[in-house]
Amino acid sequence: MEQQKQYAVGIDIGGTTTKFGIVDREGNIIEQDRIPSNAHEVVEDFIDDLYAKLMPMITKMGGVEQCAGIGMGAPNGNFYTGTIEYAPNLKWKGIIPIADLIEKKFGLPTKLTNDANAAAVGEMMYGCTKKIKHFITITLGTGVGSGIVIDGKIVLGHDGFAGELGHTIIRPGGRMHKSTGMRGSLEAYASATGVRETAIEMLTEHPEKESLLRNYSLNELTSHSVYECAMQGDTIANNIFEFTGQILGESLANFIMFSSPEAIVLFGGLTKAGSLILNPTRKHMEANLLPIFQNKVKLLFSELQEADAAIVGASALIWDVPAEHQY
Amino acid sequence: MEQQKQYAVGIDIGGTTTKFGIVDREGNIIEQDRIPSNAHEVVEDFIDDLYAKLMPMITKMGGVEQCAGIGMGAPNGNFYTGTIEYAPNLKWKGIIPIADLIEKKFGLPTKLTNDANAAAVGEMMYGCTKKIKHFITITLGTGVGSGIVIDGKIVLGHDGFAGELGHTIIRPGGRMHKSTGMRGSLEAYASATGVRETAIEMLTEHPEKESLLRNYSLNELTSHSVYECAMQGDTIANNIFEFTGQILGESLANFIMFSSPEAIVLFGGLTKAGSLILNPTRKHMEANLLPIFQNKVKLLFSELQEADAAIVGASALIWDVPAEHQY
Repeated sequence: MEQQKQYAVGIDIGGTTTKFGIVDREGNIIEQDRIPSNAHEVVEDFIDDLYAKLMPMITKMGGVEQCAGIGMGAPNGNFYTGTIEYAPNLKWKGIIPIADLIEKKFGLPTKLTNDANAAAVGEMMYGCTKKIKHFITITLGTGVGSGIVIDGKIVLGHDGFAGELGHTIIRPGGRMHKSTGMRGSLEAYASATGVRETAIEMLTEHPEKESLLRNYSLNELTSHSVYECAMQGDTIANNIFEFTGQILGESLANFIMFSSPEAIVLFGGLTKAGSLILNPTRKHMEANLLPIFQNKVKLLFSELQEADAAIVGASALIWDVPAEHQY
Repeated sequence: MEQQKQYAVGIDIGGTTTKFGIVDREGNIIEQDRIPSNAHEVVEDFIDDLYAKLMPMITKMGGVEQCAGIGMGAPNGNFYTGTIEYAPNLKWKGIIPIADLIEKKFGLPTKLTNDANAAAVGEMMYGCTKKIKHFITITLGTGVGSGIVIDGKIVLGHDGFAGELGHTIIRPGGRMHKSTGMRGSLEAYASATGVRETAIEMLTEHPEKESLLRNYSLNELTSHSVYECAMQGDTIANNIFEFTGQILGESLANFIMFSSPEAIVLFGGLTKAGSLILNPTRKHMEANLLPIFQNKVKLLFSELQEADAAIVGASALIWDVPAEHQY
């Protein structure tokens, strides 16, 4: 039955924006649109708004008969239960049975997982890990997300919440994470937010050192401005990436000694810094591995288009993944 | 065929001693013996010595016809290849095809895995995780070993070396590990060796503080003497367990956010300290978890007899594990 259907819907619920689209079996987005995630007090109103924009797209592509189902990625999205549970960045509190609600509204089978897992599924279906059965995807965006694949399957854990590597502690007693209140987590350093904080720390700790970064107002100072200054040879800006790569590399070494993956795939805004982030990350990763793990693990940049990856990854939940990659 | 066979052989190759025995399907050791691990320059001599002691036992139990196979645990033992690779504590260097050599010598199917994975398999077959599909076993002995089970399967990774959690870094730049040269690994603190080092550090850093531990010579000072003094109310001895539990608890929190297990099983010499180690471990584990993981993960002591666990766990590699626990 499903074999005849040409399309799947992908929905990515982010902290600010919900993106959705119609995706074909090759991972091409045919149509897409977006609505705000937090403009609706109750989730039912959000779904009404989504339906008003998404259903005409589905109709245009041939109706629900042409559509194999709806795949969704969301923060704290649980594959086992189809619920979003206590997502700190979303307006709807508690446990939201969103997969059930969407399935009933659209009359299409609906699967949910967390946003980082959806990205890993997308990478496995359409990206750089098509032939790799053991890998970890690390998303370096506003936060740090992760999707772990072992033997071709996303690691979900006993409750569906596995793979929160951004919240593992790599500097005990270190920098406070503003939303979790935890100290020294990977996300406090290796996210866009973390890079900005490192910049402010380094600039204020060394007021005597010249830096192009001092030309930016506090509001303008972002991971992107750090990148631009580093490319112009600015020492502090380069030190910021070196430090970020050190923290990330040490964390990756710990992850490797857990699941011994063949590859680690980096994804998200910070990867635009290219070798500025990749080189120190690789150096500190290798330096913190036992010899049996050294010079074995591929450190890759994602091959998915960032703007599309969330929708494509979510839609990929619907298809039968290749035999070696059973979800 | 295999269903009729009553026994399996379990062999545990440790850094000092190799223990082996005949084990029945219920995990009872029928006969056992041991030989030194490092008394033979070449592995073939070791196997000859093993054969001379083990083969008469097999014959006594009814011969190889009654025996389903040989399961082995060894440091750096690789399930995929049946080889021991660069084990730092063994005399035979390089890559040793030990499963093949044993299989040919005895004429019995032979499986190998690392010693910590063998303990996890034993726990799954005969211990406290018979009904648990997601768990991690942490062995707190001379070193810190680990076996990770996800969906009822030991995590082996792409190359068979997954699960080296004792070598993950929890105090970057911290205590030097004498054999790996790495700084701040879990094993440098939460092993018997680590507890002894913490004791020496605390006693020398605070020469003014009275402690029963000062009655021991440096040679007598072991994790066991720290336990005895702590039980008598000694403050420094109690602080040593508090500190050890803190490091272990922080590490366990990181592991939980990786694979979201239902239980963590502690095993090995340090667990004799009971609540002295369990309470601070649990406290610091919970304090370092995201809310979605808190108050969910069982922290258990192994139900296997320590003296027997290595042999029983190794032998368990041979049996068909329960359907939910496919190895």
